Amino acid sequence: MNKMKTTNEFPDKIYLTADEIPKAWYNLRADMDKKPAPLINPATGDPVTLEELTCIFTEEGAKQELDETTKFIPIPEEIQNQYRKFRPAPLVRAADFEKAIGTSAKIYYKFEGNNTSGSHKLNSAIAQAYYAKKEGLTHLTTETGAGQWGTALAMSCEKMGLDLTVYMVKCSYEQKPFRREIMKTFGGRVVPSPSMETEAGKKILSENPDNPGSLGVAISEAVETAVTTPSTKYVLGSVLNQVLLHQTIIGLETQVAMKKYGIKPDVIVGCAGGGSNLGGFMAPFLGEQLRGEEHYKFIAAESASCPSLTKGEFKYDYCDTGRVTPMAKMYTMGYDYIPPSNHAGGLRYHGMSPILSEIYHQGLMEAYAYEQHDVFEANTIFARAEGILPAPESGHAIKAVIDEATKFPASKTDTTGPVIVFCLSGTGFFDMVAYGKYNNGEL
Amino acid sequence: MNKMKTTNEFPDKIYLTADEIPKAWYNLRADMDKKPAPLINPATGDPVTLEELTCIFTEEGAKQELDETTKFIPIPEEIQNQYRKFRPAPLVRAADFEKAIGTSAKIYYKFEGNNTSGSHKLNSAIAQAYYAKKEGLTHLTTETGAGQWGTALAMSCEKMGLDLTVYMVKCSYEQKPFRREIMKTFGGRVVPSPSMETEAGKKILSENPDNPGSLGVAISEAVETAVTTPSTKYVLGSVLNQVLLHQTIIGLETQVAMKKYGIKPDVIVGCAGGGSNLGGFMAPFLGEQLRGEEHYKFIAAESASCPSLTKGEFKYDYCDTGRVTPMAKMYTMGYDYIPPSNHAGGLRYHGMSPILSEIYHQGLMEAYAYEQHDVFEANTIFARAEGILPAPESGHAIKAVIDEATKFPASKTDTTGPVIVFCLSGTGFFDMVAYGKYNNGEL
Repeated sequence: MNKMKTTNEFPDKIYLTADEIPKAWYNLRADMDKKPAPLINPATGDPVTLEELTCIFTEEGAKQELDETTKFIPIPEEIQNQYRKFRPAPLVRAADFEKAIGTSAKIYYKFEGNNTSGSHKLNSAIAQAYYAKKEGLTHLTTETGAGQWGTALAMSCEKMGLDLTVYMVKCSYEQKPFRREIMKTFGGRVVPSPSMETEAGKKILSENPDNPGSLGVAISEAVETAVTTPSTKYVLGSVLNQVLLHQTIIGLETQVAMKKYGIKPDVIVGCAGGGSNLGGFMAPFLGEQLRGEEHYKFIAAESASCPSLTKGEFKYDYCDTGRVTPMAKMYTMGYDYIPPSNHAGGLRYHGMSPILSEIYHQGLMEAYAYEQHDVFEANTIFARAEGILPAPESGHAIKAVIDEATKFPASKTDTTGPVIVFCLSGTGFFDMVAYGKYNNGEL
Repeated sequence: MNKMKTTNEFPDKIYLTADEIPKAWYNLRADMDKKPAPLINPATGDPVTLEELTCIFTEEGAKQELDETTKFIPIPEEIQNQYRKFRPAPLVRAADFEKAIGTSAKIYYKFEGNNTSGSHKLNSAIAQAYYAKKEGLTHLTTETGAGQWGTALAMSCEKMGLDLTVYMVKCSYEQKPFRREIMKTFGGRVVPSPSMETEAGKKILSENPDNPGSLGVAISEAVETAVTTPSTKYVLGSVLNQVLLHQTIIGLETQVAMKKYGIKPDVIVGCAGGGSNLGGFMAPFLGEQLRGEEHYKFIAAESASCPSLTKGEFKYDYCDTGRVTPMAKMYTMGYDYIPPSNHAGGLRYHGMSPILSEIYHQGLMEAYAYEQHDVFEANTIFARAEGILPAPESGHAIKAVIDEATKFPASKTDTTGPVIVFCLSGTGFFDMVAYGKYNNGEL
């Protein structure tokens, strides 16, 4: 349908009205003939049951985790009310960026960074905090690395009147004091991990009081606290089916906005860590393709420091370094994989969402891995052109967009370049140490 | 007109369409019977001439500085195009904040922080960079303290293809590496001041190689570089008449949005440093009052660490610590005033815009000074309720809003509280050191 449009018919900035925000999440699994492999209990080797899952997750979260058939799951009104505080997210034409890289492609980005947590993570944090409150819980625990998830969850728990304990890897706690303080401002209790609050932490500290911590240890502490404290559960910000479900609000809004203006994307790009923004953004478009209604080119952009899709193995693995969660069939670098020590570009999760792993395994999506230097170079070009500082994670998508768009050089006579849309999942305000290294030629 | 409205008729979030963004700035001086006192040349004691001003400022900037009669000054199309990248700024009902503080007042905020520079400063930075480019300049210089202005100007110079040198006070350069790096990402050259690049810097360093720098020294270096380098001028981000003029886009948009929904504000609040956001936000409403069309209560909220309106003197003083600029008649603490060393709350400029000083002197505006502890407390309440982390500067306005709104306690039967609107001038993402001090009870 784009062929009939002149360049001027591609609007600059599409803001939906509040009424146009979708009122149900989309469950991609309902449209998949071959479903993702089930989570299994490592102790028994059997698929996990709803009962087992509710030991860890909220009841509604556990149901959503296992639901493979309900195509649309209504978004509760209270969650819709919270969404309206930062949604609809704008869909923006990156016209200056197109000029900067010299392409005839029309590039749009869905901007998820326009909220104080700085990323799309809030879409799922609000939902998970809401269900916890509804089920009578008073307290959630989680761990945080870069801090986007911890911040989003602190904001959400504050809204829902829940206490929150965030176990933050001790070296990050010390090296990222700003992330620590913003979580505190939103009422989160931030504990450097390993801590003396848990048996897991005490054991490690007794062996080495100077242990700098790791994500694996932080997860162990968060899970232990959840299991041993009344009215408390543990929540996660990526990888899980329920998280991808909540994140489909990104893709659904994008779909509504593009249809409103009669624009059909040709290429759909997202960055891939655990898969939360990629899956949420692509799911509604993947659904159209699975149902045979449309055809798109899907591109996942991952980090060369943690290339689960392009270099990992498709197998059952633990979702966490501490091996306390169920096992998932996914593309993985191995649960004990650690990115190179010079890695500053985000996307350091060892595995990939089981849904996206299955989609990739079916050949529906391409994947490319990018080096961090090239990612920060892409981010700097984008920042200067569009006036938005992207998160390092989002920069992987930008690099992929550049590679794709520059196949169609700018031309005065030929303006038929493809329409590329990507998810700008977050901002880089708390990643200036990494930008500084790039500015100083150290990446 | 509000009396006829039910509570539900106050909408949550007002986004204007791009077409509704005003296309001319409003020059408040045209509606003032008694004009602000002119800038004077300290060497002669005479009012500065257009010719003298163009030694420092762009020609268009100098004209705007002296223009007391043109009521509406058209915004050039290229500036409008850049404004559309981050404007219209939303006008948002702070309903959860109303609940948190227990008031029947209806509180709206105009949110100017939705751009990567993080504040309203971009409104004038773009205009000043545009005029510099149009007049054939190739390079601008400025100094920066907290860094909002430097970031906005770096983004604007990048857009207009100008080089930029930012003299950043050396101790800030070292203590605020993130601000430094974001300016570099947008192509600004950031020089720790005092530097060996200028005579002023060399002199100071020869006396003390470890001099930590000051805003006064940084201004001297920026002005010296501008005067001694071809095609180069020096630009400022506050205090000046031209800056207030550009910032009227804030108030004009607010006016359009409120009129669109038939809402009349009763109280209009802003924070006051040099006056750039306060003046820009209030000017169109002050104009209505001066013309006898409406009556509002205007409140300026300043820092108790630098209380120029409430404790300063109304007199001619230098605009800068280094005494290189013209003198202005304004409320001032004295050009060599230095806020207490524990000051973390922003708003550290010693004087006040001459326009706003005259308005205040005529009794059109109230002013209150707030301690930084109370400001961060107000910011934390607002952040938790509304999910936006305010800049320390903006927090002064929030504190004033709380004081005003809580005069009208929440009530099930009486919902006739006033409509209060304030300017949320920026975000606090780069002020987490100060938030950390507050979180730890050190403010």
